[in-house]
Amino acid sequence: MKVDNKSFTSIWIDTQKKVWIIDQTKIPFQFNTLELSNINDFIFAIKFMQVRGAPLIGITAAYGIYIAMQYDTSDQNLMKAAKTLLATRPTAINLKWALDSMLEQLINIPGKDRVKKALKIANKMSEDDIKINEKIGINGLQVIEKLYEKKKDKINILTHCNAGWLATVDWGTATAPIYKSRDNNIPIHIWVDETRPRNQGSFLTSWELMNENIDHTIIADNTGGHLMQNNLVDIVITGSDRTTYQGDVCNKVGTYLKAIAAYENNIPFYVALPSSTIDWSNNLKDIIIEERDENEIHYLEGLDANKKIKKIRITPEYTKAKNYAFDITPSKYITGLITENGVCSAKEQEIKKYNEK
Amino acid sequence: MKVDNKSFTSIWIDTQKKVWIIDQTKIPFQFNTLELSNINDFIFAIKFMQVRGAPLIGITAAYGIYIAMQYDTSDQNLMKAAKTLLATRPTAINLKWALDSMLEQLINIPGKDRVKKALKIANKMSEDDIKINEKIGINGLQVIEKLYEKKKDKINILTHCNAGWLATVDWGTATAPIYKSRDNNIPIHIWVDETRPRNQGSFLTSWELMNENIDHTIIADNTGGHLMQNNLVDIVITGSDRTTYQGDVCNKVGTYLKAIAAYENNIPFYVALPSSTIDWSNNLKDIIIEERDENEIHYLEGLDANKKIKKIRITPEYTKAKNYAFDITPSKYITGLITENGVCSAKEQEIKKYNEK
Repeated sequence: MKVDNKSFTSIWIDTQKKVWIIDQTKIPFQFNTLELSNINDFIFAIKFMQVRGAPLIGITAAYGIYIAMQYDTSDQNLMKAAKTLLATRPTAINLKWALDSMLEQLINIPGKDRVKKALKIANKMSEDDIKINEKIGINGLQVIEKLYEKKKDKINILTHCNAGWLATVDWGTATAPIYKSRDNNIPIHIWVDETRPRNQGSFLTSWELMNENIDHTIIADNTGGHLMQNNLVDIVITGSDRTTYQGDVCNKVGTYLKAIAAYENNIPFYVALPSSTIDWSNNLKDIIIEERDENEIHYLEGLDANKKIKKIRITPEYTKAKNYAFDITPSKYITGLITENGVCSAKEQEIKKYNEK
Repeated sequence: MKVDNKSFTSIWIDTQKKVWIIDQTKIPFQFNTLELSNINDFIFAIKFMQVRGAPLIGITAAYGIYIAMQYDTSDQNLMKAAKTLLATRPTAINLKWALDSMLEQLINIPGKDRVKKALKIANKMSEDDIKINEKIGINGLQVIEKLYEKKKDKINILTHCNAGWLATVDWGTATAPIYKSRDNNIPIHIWVDETRPRNQGSFLTSWELMNENIDHTIIADNTGGHLMQNNLVDIVITGSDRTTYQGDVCNKVGTYLKAIAAYENNIPFYVALPSSTIDWSNNLKDIIIEERDENEIHYLEGLDANKKIKKIRITPEYTKAKNYAFDITPSKYITGLITENGVCSAKEQEIKKYNEK
């Protein structure tokens, strides 16, 4: 997608086969690109959210294995790199999926072939991610088209957090149907949840949409219920960090509140996800909800009057805060899941029918 | 209540009969008291939220009439002062209630008696407010006591926005049962919703509770649903800016989302309010929801590294935002209303039985 009218993906390999990312911690205030040149760079980037979003985390970890192999191709180093990368973020299932896939394909080949092979797998994952997200967009477009045929007026889409192209390699998950709707001349307007405490909505999603010239409005996370009560939302589309085989969705904290509000107001609530984020073995009770540093609630960055980035404390000194990063939306509140394989209900049988390979 | 171990009310008259307030726009970062010495000071204070909270707005407006009378006791000035004060905040019904009450009692007495009488009425309103809130506390205590008898462990109370003593003259509405529980040795812990975009929870409620040594934790507004799903909330208590005679509650935006989450998770959801905030003539469809300046979403104040107050922009430049300040929680989601007259269900008949004079 575009940044200042130039095309970007969120992670890429340069002509010297080096790995580059966009530092997402400074967006929208600064646009910096960074080379990740050793395993610690990758761990830092994932842990401190220079890259974030379930699909992108997985692919970044895969490239992390590639870089780790450049230093030491031993089994021991392969296992160690995978283990430390896996520990960076506990909730995102893609991380495990990507690392398991790397391990499986690398462990039985000679050390000397591992660098080249690792790059090949990571590149394939990246290309697949782009294709998968575009398919999610095409499938999600059908849902929005139906709403537009009925309403014959601008479709208001509410989204939470950033499930945009910055969370994937390109297209995004929740935003892919948005971009496809725009490309197909369906008039749309996006309500962007600010998404406290990390403000991924107002920092990232609105920055993405602005760069793509898509009409949107930032709202406090508290506002969605009021909008839904007053017919100002036609559909909610969010991403998912992990979806159980039973259709329960683990996503950014606050997703659940929007889902129950949509349910109460008869508004369709869709979750867009690559099938790689489906957890085939755990149900919702087994999911560990990541608890992040409480300083993410106490401090916030923005631009001061001189347009310099400033960090300020926004809670009384010495108060405590609790920072659960995700919540679980039970399947009953979800109208449908949009994957690269189609649109299905959030029920075990349909999920299996559409997505199990 | 206490500030740095010294007792305060949120508005008071000094020995020279001058009107003083606490500037609530600088809390928790600075504690400043301000004299309001002419009608424009009062308009500014209410409009720009140096005083806020439904009960306090009404009483401040009453004192505004007192000060306006000091300058000019004519009918014309009385009507003009009431009209401009009423226009400052459209949603709070107390403002209308307090001004109607002032007008009614002042319009038929000679100009020369109006200053003294206006002060007397405003003082009476202020004293009544303290008594009413203490009664709300005593009535709400019964609800919490019952929960404690059953749980026999710390009661977790979630509250949204600031319905604390800063929103009234003393005690607060939603916080009065909290202070009464503490005074009666019931172990309590408060989940304080940050309450974007004005952060009244993290700025004001947590500052109040800290000064009163009450155990509390600040959370992002997105978190309450997850806490409720995981049995970490025993009761929700909020305030109300306006309650219809049919039991629908208009309160800070986001209240509705917490109410439906409580409903879905079988958690009691109570609203604490003085009976003066009951709207006996309008139903929920007639209530105008105040839309505030979008800059309240774009900018935020806090302390920088040098502990100076700094304002930063927290959204991309040139993006737009929408700032609905309130929402309406339909009566079906409300377990009960706590007023100075008792605890009743949010149903028309019970509301009338308990509260209609």
